[in-house]
Amino acid sequence: MSNPLTIDAVPGTSYADITREFDAPVEALFRAHADPALFAQWIGPGEERTEVTHWDFRSGGGYRFVQRDARGEYAFRGVFHTTRENELIIQTFEYEGWPDEVSMDAIRFEALLDGRSRLVDHSVFSTIEVLENMVAEGMERGMREGYEKLDRMLAAGV
Amino acid sequence: MSNPLTIDAVPGTSYADITREFDAPVEALFRAHADPALFAQWIGPGEERTEVTHWDFRSGGGYRFVQRDARGEYAFRGVFHTTRENELIIQTFEYEGWPDEVSMDAIRFEALLDGRSRLVDHSVFSTIEVLENMVAEGMERGMREGYEKLDRMLAAGV
Repeated sequence: MSNPLTIDAVPGTSYADITREFDAPVEALFRAHADPALFAQWIGPGEERTEVTHWDFRSGGGYRFVQRDARGEYAFRGVFHTTRENELIIQTFEYEGWPDEVSMDAIRFEALLDGRSRLVDHSVFSTIEVLENMVAEGMERGMREGYEKLDRMLAAGV
Repeated sequence: MSNPLTIDAVPGTSYADITREFDAPVEALFRAHADPALFAQWIGPGEERTEVTHWDFRSGGGYRFVQRDARGEYAFRGVFHTTRENELIIQTFEYEGWPDEVSMDAIRFEALLDGRSRLVDHSVFSTIEVLENMVAEGMERGMREGYEKLDRMLAAGV
């Protein structure tokens, strides 16, 4: 059974807190966000294939990746404002198909008992309307399916 | 007489739109944001002296600067998500004295008639409370005094 995904969005605000626990130590959870070869295996919904085209994981660095499925190709890019091992990633995020519309995530990593861990992503959008649009476009499904792939990857002992 | 500074914050949201016109062409206004030697001359309130300690003005780059006055020293840093000449800067912003509290600005530059220009900064904070705190701490005064210095700099023909 999969761990639940919780998205708390206070109505009328432009941000949401996404909480998800994992049956793996915080070091493994962080590594799956820091290592491009691991990241590419779980990010995004469903059966898309991800190619990381730029990866510079450090405070002041940045990233870009492209996802492809039967319908087409989707590119995403951003900068890393802060990376702090096993603790925190603060980054921007842009879907290149919606240029100049940029969101920001502060992703906190917490160690739990029994070798488990928790991720809390405070996701900030430019306006209330943009967040509503992202929710309508299936943000929750994309995150849920991605984290389920991540569960399987972590269970395989990455 | 100075051009007015307008800060539109919709109550209950975590973002504000800051609008300011300048009696100078958009190219000069943009250059004052892109060139660290110029930027250091106007950013921030009052009589602080600014030292730019890191400057990499490009999409995917970053910056850091330190301001000093009689009371002490204040450092700020961020990453440039997008820079597009005479049009747009999207960047993060952190005051190092309030670590991990990061805001994001999308600053649009518009050419007006008669060699004038307009800046519209959509400034996004992590929560409503953070924006309220920034307003209480004198955000408006800091911006107003900075832009008045910028007025004088542009009038001097930079």
